[in-house]
Amino acid sequence: MALVTFLSDYGLQDEFVGVCHGVIAMLAPGTQVIDVTHGVPRHDVRTGALTLRHALPFCPPGVHLAIVDPEVGPSARRAVAVAVGAGDRVLLGPDNGLLMPAAEALGGAVEAVDVGLSPFRLEPVSATFHGRDLFAPVAAALARGEPLGAAGEPIAADQLLPLALPEAIVEDGGVRAHALHTDGFGNVMLDATHEQLIAAGLRLGAPVSVQSRHTEHPARFVKAFVDVPEGALLLYEDARRMAALAVNRGSAASLLGVRRDGEIVLRAG
Amino acid sequence: MALVTFLSDYGLQDEFVGVCHGVIAMLAPGTQVIDVTHGVPRHDVRTGALTLRHALPFCPPGVHLAIVDPEVGPSARRAVAVAVGAGDRVLLGPDNGLLMPAAEALGGAVEAVDVGLSPFRLEPVSATFHGRDLFAPVAAALARGEPLGAAGEPIAADQLLPLALPEAIVEDGGVRAHALHTDGFGNVMLDATHEQLIAAGLRLGAPVSVQSRHTEHPARFVKAFVDVPEGALLLYEDARRMAALAVNRGSAASLLGVRRDGEIVLRAG
Amino acid sequence: MALVTFLSDYGLQDEFVGVCHGVIAMLAPGTQVIDVTHGVPRHDVRTGALTLRHALPFCPPGVHLAIVDPEVGPSARRAVAVAVGAGDRVLLGPDNGLLMPAAEALGGAVEAVDVGLSPFRLEPVSATFHGRDLFAPVAAALARGEPLGAAGEPIAADQLLPLALPEAIVEDGGVRAHALHTDGFGNVMLDATHEQLIAAGLRLGAPVSVQSRHTEHPARFVKAFVDVPEGALLLYEDARRMAALAVNRGSAASLLGVRRDGEIVLRAG
Repeated sequence: MALVTFLSDYGLQDEFVGVCHGVIAMLAPGTQVIDVTHGVPRHDVRTGALTLRHALPFCPPGVHLAIVDPEVGPSARRAVAVAVGAGDRVLLGPDNGLLMPAAEALGGAVEAVDVGLSPFRLEPVSATFHGRDLFAPVAAALARGEPLGAAGEPIAADQLLPLALPEAIVEDGGVRAHALHTDGFGNVMLDATHEQLIAAGLRLGAPVSVQSRHTEHPARFVKAFVDVPEGALLLYEDARRMAALAVNRGSAASLLGVRRDGEIVLRAG
Repeated sequence: MALVTFLSDYGLQDEFVGVCHGVIAMLAPGTQVIDVTHGVPRHDVRTGALTLRHALPFCPPGVHLAIVDPEVGPSARRAVAVAVGAGDRVLLGPDNGLLMPAAEALGGAVEAVDVGLSPFRLEPVSATFHGRDLFAPVAAALARGEPLGAAGEPIAADQLLPLALPEAIVEDGGVRAHALHTDGFGNVMLDATHEQLIAAGLRLGAPVSVQSRHTEHPARFVKAFVDVPEGALLLYEDARRMAALAVNRGSAASLLGVRRDGEIVLRAG
Repeated sequence: MALVTFLSDYGLQDEFVGVCHGVIAMLAPGTQVIDVTHGVPRHDVRTGALTLRHALPFCPPGVHLAIVDPEVGPSARRAVAVAVGAGDRVLLGPDNGLLMPAAEALGGAVEAVDVGLSPFRLEPVSATFHGRDLFAPVAAALARGEPLGAAGEPIAADQLLPLALPEAIVEDGGVRAHALHTDGFGNVMLDATHEQLIAAGLRLGAPVSVQSRHTEHPARFVKAFVDVPEGALLLYEDARRMAALAVNRGSAASLLGVRRDGEIVLRAG
């Protein structure tokens, strides 16, 4: 497991990410660390969880460190390591739902430990920087081959905190979906799948009506951005294999006035 | 070729860059990846191309992955791999001019293949994230030693799309130059060389008149920022060996109201 | 010493950081480079110095490259390499105070050389990008095992330029402290230690009065953010083991109108 992936909401302005890299290099020399992203909006567990779910299937097995941790503190939430699927991947982070969508996408949790009092911690553990004092050292220990059971106290996998997510509904003549996530380009990922769009009667290449905040917007259900003119709204299956809305060379989030979990109804136009 | 350099306009807010790193680590374990920058302004092929040209001569030979790709899509533009110079470097990216200034700086294209249907692609190839599904997998294949010819269909090197760039002209008593690029500090790179400045009668250490948007600004032709007071405009040869304008601890781009390719005339002051 | 840590104010928008990585990879293949951060505010030697001091104790021994260099130029300031502590760490950068707090934290300077005319430079050395032409090549040389003495001319360690920092004073019933540094979350690090707070009669768990710019703000002296309600001001020992002020899920810097080195008086509330 000499590979660690690392996602956080630390940003790159301060030294927080660099220090975690330093700790891993000290405690597990030679470990490769892949930064998934550190641009998750601060304390935004939802965005962190979805980002992790989409990224990890494209990363090699290893230790998957993820820190978006609004409740950091001595006793505020559990810190967990969760083996998933065939056991060659371990998710590591706060037990606040952040890890769960990725765990499910990778085959489900098969073993979990509470690492809050892990023997691999760096003492003294600060109250505010568990990335450095708790999570990075445990990641390093697992990366250098320590067994999961040595990293903490066993807990039942079904007691891990789930993440609440909305769910799209196929209706007569349309899909009642929700805005799950907006990326840096203003593209809006929905909670609907390509299959749900087809089941609702939407057809690739045909016009679509997009209703958001009581306003109807004309769009087209296409494969790629270049299939519509600049400035036009498109519905497409995004790279994460989810339905998404975008404006070619513009921002669908701005056009639609999207709020998180806001309802977006798609109907054949 | 177990080294990949990587430039893009993906930014670091989302997981796009991290996912490409993940794919390369999966398909070519042990490959070193150097991030040139992912801060190219979105869809700005020109800035990406100039940045690549300046950076690659200071990077080891290897696979030089570059993605600034406004026309991404199933059939919108070719995707190419281009061997340059002695053949120990391969440029990989969209065929939209992005790779060409670097190719020229590194000895010129000697072999090229269209990788759009490369056998190394990750199926299914999404319509919008060719970085993950096409470019990173092909980069990984080349990095682990696959020959260029196995990555796609041969194309003539002289059919690659060139990049249009303005050209400075030496006139009687001055240089008619253009603003090629502005960096994050507000320094303005011109399309004139040090040799052109000298040919136009400008002398190191002497005053210069800088005309931009019908306004004349006094400046000094010097070696370094510290050779002028804080807030003063300077003309200098920048680290890329091009003429450039800067304000010591300020922004020349703001002072001069610079637009891309805007004409800037330099005369002995 | 096949490990280099790298801190700068270059930012990640341009290719400056990537080019330094490229140079190190060319001149010292196989060297691991850990980016501490490149988000130091431009030319902010103070913030760079404090960041380096806090980060390096959590990084493995090696070459510690740091570039925040407002006076870059052919003759404007010395460029130095400084061996510290047991000699297994070398700090490398401009001699403008940037390296000194870290040097002190790591055991003090034991040997120093002026690398301005180092034989390891990349010729021609540009006037503006010493990161690429001077510092990265010297870092690479030291990383591949060249002795410090080969990198430049010996200078006395006590002639290195110190960094001026304010100092907190314990008074009757309080601590007269100063705002040393504000991080990206708006948390304000002070120049007071936990020990000084206790000596001034402040008690963990008790109310504190925080005076900044002639205004008193109620706060609580606690261990962690979660020990106060959202929006409340807290005084705590931060991960750097310094007294700090924060607002739970908010910005103490905004609330207090903090300026650098601005006086902040803490009294038992």
